[in-house]
Amino acid sequence: MRLVIVGGVAAGTKAASRARRVDPEAEITVYQEEPEPSISECGLPYFLSGVVEERDDLIARTPEKFAEKGIEVRVRHRVEKIDPEGRKLSVRRLEDGEVFDDAYDRLVVATGARAVLPPIPGADLDGIFVLRFLTDSDDVRGYIRERSPERAVVVGGGYIGLEVAENLCRLGMEVSLVEAEDRVALAYGPEVAGRIEDHLEENGVSVYTGAEVEEFVGERRVEGVRFGDRQIGADLVIVGVGVRPSVELAEQAGAEIGETGAIRVDRYMRTSLPNVWAAGDCVETVNLVSGKPVWIPLGDTANQMGRVAGTNAASSAGEGTLEFPGVLGTGIFKVFNLGVGKTGLSEEEAEEAGFETLCAAIETTDRASYYPGVGKVLLKLVADTSTGRLLGAEAAGSGADKLTDVCATAIWGRLAYPDLVNLDLAYAPPFGPALSPVIQTATVLSGQFERVRRGIRASE
Amino acid sequence: MRLVIVGGVAAGTKAASRARRVDPEAEITVYQEEPEPSISECGLPYFLSGVVEERDDLIARTPEKFAEKGIEVRVRHRVEKIDPEGRKLSVRRLEDGEVFDDAYDRLVVATGARAVLPPIPGADLDGIFVLRFLTDSDDVRGYIRERSPERAVVVGGGYIGLEVAENLCRLGMEVSLVEAEDRVALAYGPEVAGRIEDHLEENGVSVYTGAEVEEFVGERRVEGVRFGDRQIGADLVIVGVGVRPSVELAEQAGAEIGETGAIRVDRYMRTSLPNVWAAGDCVETVNLVSGKPVWIPLGDTANQMGRVAGTNAASSAGEGTLEFPGVLGTGIFKVFNLGVGKTGLSEEEAEEAGFETLCAAIETTDRASYYPGVGKVLLKLVADTSTGRLLGAEAAGSGADKLTDVCATAIWGRLAYPDLVNLDLAYAPPFGPALSPVIQTATVLSGQFERVRRGIRASE
Repeated sequence: MRLVIVGGVAAGTKAASRARRVDPEAEITVYQEEPEPSISECGLPYFLSGVVEERDDLIARTPEKFAEKGIEVRVRHRVEKIDPEGRKLSVRRLEDGEVFDDAYDRLVVATGARAVLPPIPGADLDGIFVLRFLTDSDDVRGYIRERSPERAVVVGGGYIGLEVAENLCRLGMEVSLVEAEDRVALAYGPEVAGRIEDHLEENGVSVYTGAEVEEFVGERRVEGVRFGDRQIGADLVIVGVGVRPSVELAEQAGAEIGETGAIRVDRYMRTSLPNVWAAGDCVETVNLVSGKPVWIPLGDTANQMGRVAGTNAASSAGEGTLEFPGVLGTGIFKVFNLGVGKTGLSEEEAEEAGFETLCAAIETTDRASYYPGVGKVLLKLVADTSTGRLLGAEAAGSGADKLTDVCATAIWGRLAYPDLVNLDLAYAPPFGPALSPVIQTATVLSGQFERVRRGIRASE
Repeated sequence: MRLVIVGGVAAGTKAASRARRVDPEAEITVYQEEPEPSISECGLPYFLSGVVEERDDLIARTPEKFAEKGIEVRVRHRVEKIDPEGRKLSVRRLEDGEVFDDAYDRLVVATGARAVLPPIPGADLDGIFVLRFLTDSDDVRGYIRERSPERAVVVGGGYIGLEVAENLCRLGMEVSLVEAEDRVALAYGPEVAGRIEDHLEENGVSVYTGAEVEEFVGERRVEGVRFGDRQIGADLVIVGVGVRPSVELAEQAGAEIGETGAIRVDRYMRTSLPNVWAAGDCVETVNLVSGKPVWIPLGDTANQMGRVAGTNAASSAGEGTLEFPGVLGTGIFKVFNLGVGKTGLSEEEAEEAGFETLCAAIETTDRASYYPGVGKVLLKLVADTSTGRLLGAEAAGSGADKLTDVCATAIWGRLAYPDLVNLDLAYAPPFGPALSPVIQTATVLSGQFERVRRGIRASE
């Protein structure tokens, strides 16, 4: 059995490794455009600043390591065409431009996503970068080394933009963050977004919201960024306004594309094409809370999907054995000393999805108030008024990762607020207040439900 | 309505506060033997060493604060008898020994638990203490101040003993820990217990297991501890071999006592006596995994029970409105730099409860391996072979609190290993490896299930 995998980052390499386990005899080849496979893309912002010191630390496994497991990884190769009827591929070797044919019995498409660089005038000036691949960070680092930029502008207030802003500050630059919408971290409610903006300002980042970039100004190199009637100086610009799924290859082969613009797969990660699976940032999945298709390109999810796709593609029946049920939309990032996490739906998203919601948000501590090093954390819970079920949570502050994960698990288990109030979580003074912020916030939420039950509007 | 609460630590004061919210008109009195109410008993080990500097920091609320909310807290009063027919109490004022009667409409018993000092010869020597109340820590601190002990022996390797051992080390003492069983932290499996013992030794604590203390040696003051054919020197001994529920008052009044020796209550926290609720360390509850009655005296659970008992006792119908469903047996402690948490059943406990189990234990990292400050954590998962459901988890190391809480929530939601493999947890390099230790360990577990499914014994 010959298994070919297109794409060698998280989903692709995980699929290859799993397939090897399931079928020790299979012939497995991974094609990868970039010069290294198995890159930890989430670490790129930290490599910019040297928080991650060694480039090699971001390469989880080299082609040589894969070869030891009998997995052939061919880097600098671009698959340009899939012929699903003939089970054939057309592949270009980027080194010399040579094109050759290959064949497969089963195929996993893991073409990932690429950064969007919007067609803003001046976007082709030197000193303007996106940050998606390790090679992008090589470019940025090279530019910084050569030009010693003093003023950096980050365009986009999503998690990449926020992480990059922090890391450019670490390099001693004067950093501005420019976001077109009215707040950063749009996936979060205004309580958390406001906290992030305050924290950025406290750390010396100038934040401009509602600021749509109209032009990058400069001769050959970028010198400024213009939005509205303002112009700010810039020696370096990183654009982090989003990514787009790389679906062209699958689409040309006739694979069905979902309404999010990413490849549609079933719960076995099968595309609409026979013998073709897909996984990672190029596919859409379902949000288990809203029940709606979503495209949420994240490294951990890509790994999980890759496991399912690789296992199923290599299974003897060629049919699904493992299932990937969907996601909750869980995410987290750190910006300076603030951890910010989310799972499920924000209040806004829940209402868009047709839920009537009750919410509670409180600030409490991450450990017993008398225990040294105590920090603060804000937790917001969003619940469904009719069932009491938890729909979403957002946390910002110390221990936000723990609270996010507890709430993600609670949503997965379809827990409602009375469960959360009584939940048996771990308490000792170094690890939390006597009642976890989850329990405390759920208790406030239970008060909201009680008032609704008594026919009093929560808003009164 | 006159509500009397016997006991003013976690459950008692929480019940009082909740009752006040439910019924702003109720007359509420709390009787408390110790001189201060609302003590954070879990902080006592840290007060010994000065990690918690101020005694007042351990007093969550003073009687004056309670008075502001219309709650009368009478400290240094011991309730000596309950007459459930006449709804009367006999109360002794400890200050002068005076006994008086009081009456109640509804009563909450929150008499807590007390430390066990086993009848070992020499147990009455000076310099031997238990650590349960704030007054105990006053005594220990006084003794340390006066006698400057250099060699301390902690008897008992449960979490109190472990926390005390660490804190006595912080004071510069030479510390030995003596445990009668063959390992410390008996509630945990041998993997975790071994790690704790290693960590104690690394931090200079001498650990003696399988060492049942036969005698405390000394004239007026303790000078040594004898077990087996050994004797070790001791200027100070702290005995932390367990606690016992204080049920005598309720028992004499005719309240049913459960098989664990603690007061039996229903899910509304009602005792078998009319108009009498009970909560906290004096009651038993049910372990939601085994379905069996358990007595697990912990501060967070006491708070949760107190909320239910107080709300229900103060509700107009005098009947249950809130429910306390039971516990998972979740707990955590820190010893030096090692966090150790547990939820649900250990492998041993699960088998005693009649489950056939599959287990997986792996050591992994608490963040991306390339991210600065990366630490290690061991996670063990215990699952039910027939259903795949998670029955228990133990974690030791960096981020053990997060993993314990995620697993506790998973058990509460009755999740099985395929859920855990696909669980959508929060990933960014500072907060975890790309796949959470929970997901990684569940993936190993899924391999075990796969082997069993294929009819191959997991042990092969």
